[in-house]
Amino acid sequence: MAKRIVVALGGNALGKNLPEQMAAVKITAKAITDLIEAGHEVVIAHGNGPQVGMIQNAMAQLVRSEPENHVPFPLSVCVAMSQGYIGYDLQNALREEMLDRGIDRGVSTVLTQVEVDRDDPAFAHPTKPIGAFMTKEEADALIKERDYDVIEDAGRGYRRVVASPMPKSIIEIDTVLSLVSTNHIVIACGGGGIPVFKTGGHHLKGAAAVIDKDFAAAVLAKQLDADMLIILTAVPKVAIRFGKPDQKELTRMSVKEAEKYIADGEFAPGSMLPKIEASVDFVSSRQGRTALITQLERARDGIDGKEGTVIY
Amino acid sequence: MAKRIVVALGGNALGKNLPEQMAAVKITAKAITDLIEAGHEVVIAHGNGPQVGMIQNAMAQLVRSEPENHVPFPLSVCVAMSQGYIGYDLQNALREEMLDRGIDRGVSTVLTQVEVDRDDPAFAHPTKPIGAFMTKEEADALIKERDYDVIEDAGRGYRRVVASPMPKSIIEIDTVLSLVSTNHIVIACGGGGIPVFKTGGHHLKGAAAVIDKDFAAAVLAKQLDADMLIILTAVPKVAIRFGKPDQKELTRMSVKEAEKYIADGEFAPGSMLPKIEASVDFVSSRQGRTALITQLERARDGIDGKEGTVIY
Repeated sequence: MAKRIVVALGGNALGKNLPEQMAAVKITAKAITDLIEAGHEVVIAHGNGPQVGMIQNAMAQLVRSEPENHVPFPLSVCVAMSQGYIGYDLQNALREEMLDRGIDRGVSTVLTQVEVDRDDPAFAHPTKPIGAFMTKEEADALIKERDYDVIEDAGRGYRRVVASPMPKSIIEIDTVLSLVSTNHIVIACGGGGIPVFKTGGHHLKGAAAVIDKDFAAAVLAKQLDADMLIILTAVPKVAIRFGKPDQKELTRMSVKEAEKYIADGEFAPGSMLPKIEASVDFVSSRQGRTALITQLERARDGIDGKEGTVIY
Repeated sequence: MAKRIVVALGGNALGKNLPEQMAAVKITAKAITDLIEAGHEVVIAHGNGPQVGMIQNAMAQLVRSEPENHVPFPLSVCVAMSQGYIGYDLQNALREEMLDRGIDRGVSTVLTQVEVDRDDPAFAHPTKPIGAFMTKEEADALIKERDYDVIEDAGRGYRRVVASPMPKSIIEIDTVLSLVSTNHIVIACGGGGIPVFKTGGHHLKGAAAVIDKDFAAAVLAKQLDADMLIILTAVPKVAIRFGKPDQKELTRMSVKEAEKYIADGEFAPGSMLPKIEASVDFVSSRQGRTALITQLERARDGIDGKEGTVIY
């Protein structure tokens, strides 16, 4: 039965630099086109960890070399650029793979802003490292001059850390909905979306933050009234007692079970934990919604329950 | 009477760096919202000369500083990034201005590729300077290592030049059409669009080129079956004998007159000439289509023939 599906792509699906990306999107496009060919409505969200770090580094170097021409580029602007950088290759690879299979459908990237709460506690505790490693002197200068938060990464130097607030809503949801309803394939919420908060009236201000792409994909899936959220990752199934001799892979997991495993600390923060939390958020939002966590190449069979871990 | 209008924004509408852009888009948004408030369907195209040059410089510096991690970023990728960079601010300013006036419409940026002909004669004669000035040594290295075309700009150093081929068609036209048909405001063909050519089958390859945004806007307007193309520029009206004592501003100009003036060399290449040529291309493509060339703040009255130069 045809489903409306939001697919969240992780780092494996995109690679870490341009040559890797251009190769990775071809494989990614095949797996996504499998879903489209099976009759599903597909909306694609994706991460941008390495990409936004790279862009932020490049723009910071530009500012250093031409301080008379430029002011530092806010992280929100770098996220917007990363949506163009990734979306271009991804939409092209999808377009080509679909046409190769005789599927003539519009595919496009929608620049997407995602609202966060300016009072989100995450802003008081930035934890997400971005950009290049720095020396202590460089780090101290940025702390002093730009009020950056910086952490020392054991032995490898210093890195800027930014907040990772929870997504509240997708600003461009009407655009995405309109395109999905007219049979288009949409790439949205790239990098978790450009993080913005309301400052009074209608004004949106970019936040110095990055939004977790799995949480953004869950909000997108809820607002699109999707049937399924697929979170692609590096392992075939979710496991408990992960890495231990008695590790156990899960084929199906109820929200109740997932919440118990979360409470038991079964899932690694910053890794499997946000994927499970995002799945629980989506699945528990309405009767009949399910989430699937698996590898790219297993997604198609996973929809039918033959691969991966289904959260219900 | 409500018209479907493609508006092509020039450099004045966007500024040359981020602080300028953030201020300029607010003024631009007011003028465009005037058109929307008057009941017109509006699609926005824009240039990216300073922006794509800036991004290309930033990415080139990144490659120089981390040659082990990166290969040079193709110009097409930089154009894609510039669409994110500009679209984010522009769509936000439009959204805010519309909501301030009680207009609740979706507004979004669609990442847009524009097909060019790989045999376009422009590829044999690159003329469009992009990026920073270089020393002779830097220029010679790029010519040797990367087969770049470089010109000497009188007294100011050396610059890379790229081709400016003619746009043939908008790859994401279905997406734009679908959004326009469902009452959305769309920003498309940023920077003239990401230039791509077909290499056989369905494959699109990015071209080392930049497409003139006025020509791209004309193709977009034709494919959207628009009624009007508005090209915004720095002068209130098109003039013949420009800058001479007997300069004459034109209120209306037929395609036939425009073609005669073009033949007479009345319009400066790289400045007013492409705007007139793009207007002629659009207007002569179907009965009833008109073009308007004027300043941003005169656009609304120009639609009614009270300002600017109308080409019919």
